[in-house]
Amino acid sequence: MFKKILIIGCGLIGSSILKNSIKNKLSKNIYVYEKSKKNIKIIKKISRGIKFINNLNKDIEDIDFIIICTPMSEYNSIFSKLNKLLFKNSIITEVGSTKRNLIKFTKNKNLVLSHPIAGSEVSGPEFGNKNLFYNKWCILINKGKRKKIKLVKKFWQKLGSKVILMNEKEHDKIFAITSHLPHLIAYNLIKTAQDFQKIEKRNLIKYSAGGLRDFSRTAASNEVMWRDIFFSNKDNMINTINKFIQNLNLIKKNIKNKKDKQLKSILVNSKKVRKQIIETKQDVSKPDFGRNI
Amino acid sequence: MFKKILIIGCGLIGSSILKNSIKNKLSKNIYVYEKSKKNIKIIKKISRGIKFINNLNKDIEDIDFIIICTPMSEYNSIFSKLNKLLFKNSIITEVGSTKRNLIKFTKNKNLVLSHPIAGSEVSGPEFGNKNLFYNKWCILINKGKRKKIKLVKKFWQKLGSKVILMNEKEHDKIFAITSHLPHLIAYNLIKTAQDFQKIEKRNLIKYSAGGLRDFSRTAASNEVMWRDIFFSNKDNMINTINKFIQNLNLIKKNIKNKKDKQLKSILVNSKKVRKQIIETKQDVSKPDFGRNI
Repeated sequence: MFKKILIIGCGLIGSSILKNSIKNKLSKNIYVYEKSKKNIKIIKKISRGIKFINNLNKDIEDIDFIIICTPMSEYNSIFSKLNKLLFKNSIITEVGSTKRNLIKFTKNKNLVLSHPIAGSEVSGPEFGNKNLFYNKWCILINKGKRKKIKLVKKFWQKLGSKVILMNEKEHDKIFAITSHLPHLIAYNLIKTAQDFQKIEKRNLIKYSAGGLRDFSRTAASNEVMWRDIFFSNKDNMINTINKFIQNLNLIKKNIKNKKDKQLKSILVNSKKVRKQIIETKQDVSKPDFGRNI
Repeated sequence: MFKKILIIGCGLIGSSILKNSIKNKLSKNIYVYEKSKKNIKIIKKISRGIKFINNLNKDIEDIDFIIICTPMSEYNSIFSKLNKLLFKNSIITEVGSTKRNLIKFTKNKNLVLSHPIAGSEVSGPEFGNKNLFYNKWCILINKGKRKKIKLVKKFWQKLGSKVILMNEKEHDKIFAITSHLPHLIAYNLIKTAQDFQKIEKRNLIKYSAGGLRDFSRTAASNEVMWRDIFFSNKDNMINTINKFIQNLNLIKKNIKNKKDKQLKSILVNSKKVRKQIIETKQDVSKPDFGRNI
């Protein structure tokens, strides 16, 4: 499909692409650019065939497919190098979680913006998983050359993704609510629990199997990546936070005034979403009693 | 250990106790009182030895251990019957998730209050799991006769629980933050996503693998049980909601003003809680890529 693939930044997402590309033989020449020495050591164990590129300023003239998998805060520096070097027929894509902030980089006519909806609380190549994208959505932004978008779409499909196109505004609005706000809320809940632990001066956390446990998983996600996302999607974040607080005040009022019917209708309604999530194969219906049962 | 055990209300918790009691032969005579015909049908399949009691007004004179596993809103009706009938040496316990509201029932000198920290988003005897309590905390409230508390403690230990005693105020404060607030927040997040879906007039839920998915699981929990909990722990709920909103406004401000250092320090700190949760064996460290990988 491609003669030479380069993965820039080889953490969880990069190494998962790497493993899948090797397994599915997507290219004979797979290169990695990675700054962390610790990560390089781990990546070397994945396969002997991987070659490393040490300098984005010169070694990339003949690469025809580049996937950028670094935190978005590194894009400025990366594109300042790529813009100078790439030849016309190459394709660049990236995997950032917000898109309006990345439109400026599409001045580079080789770039197609992607967002694979896959991730985990862990980061780093030691967790790379070739099945990470299997049956997961991958959003492509419908900006740029049709032909290049088509090839990037094919690439994600080979990795097992279901690909859909949308524009950058739609994308940022949707993922503010289905991904960014849930993470922010998880972080906030854990912070609130920490504050209580300090006040109460006793270990509350050890009783967290009743619910807090699951939020702590989400709130253990990579802080650089999430800082970048929250800043890049600022106005959608503020808007969703405001709506969230508005709803929370409504529930509080219902509890305060023991409004039985109103409260129960909110609780019952949320089951419908669970049903939708299972029907659209975003989760399995198998009950969860904690991951050690 | 007991001659005759009676389980009142045989949903997820009741049927899990039932299954474990049968497996560990905790009594030769295990009775169930259950109002739902659908549930009775399912329970009959668990074991042929189970006997049903049809009337709490008369059939329970010689039961020496009763476990109430109904929603707390049914306790008034249940205790009005039990108070008349039980003999001196019998023991009653229950599994409600809040405790200050139940202290009034301890006028019945047979009662010991328990709270097994185990549950799931599913309810009903079809999900009963004999390992549900294994290695999970069970809180006993230190009110009532020492001897009876000791026997109830032994019972939960036989089911695999780690038992700890505390008073009802401590209990309600701790579980407001480790269990009740997380559930309320999950419900509120799902409601907020539903509101956005209505406004946007498109299916957002199908993109929920990025985080919303996990909250939807928690928010699919039984609505009667959680309505009862939120009402019973009203003042702690209001207090924790207020702290939560205060923190959320702080994060919002940090995003609005791009306060890099402040935001990142909140995100980094939350990983410490995750570490504590794994160290105290409230969860396993195995990464979660979604439950279908």
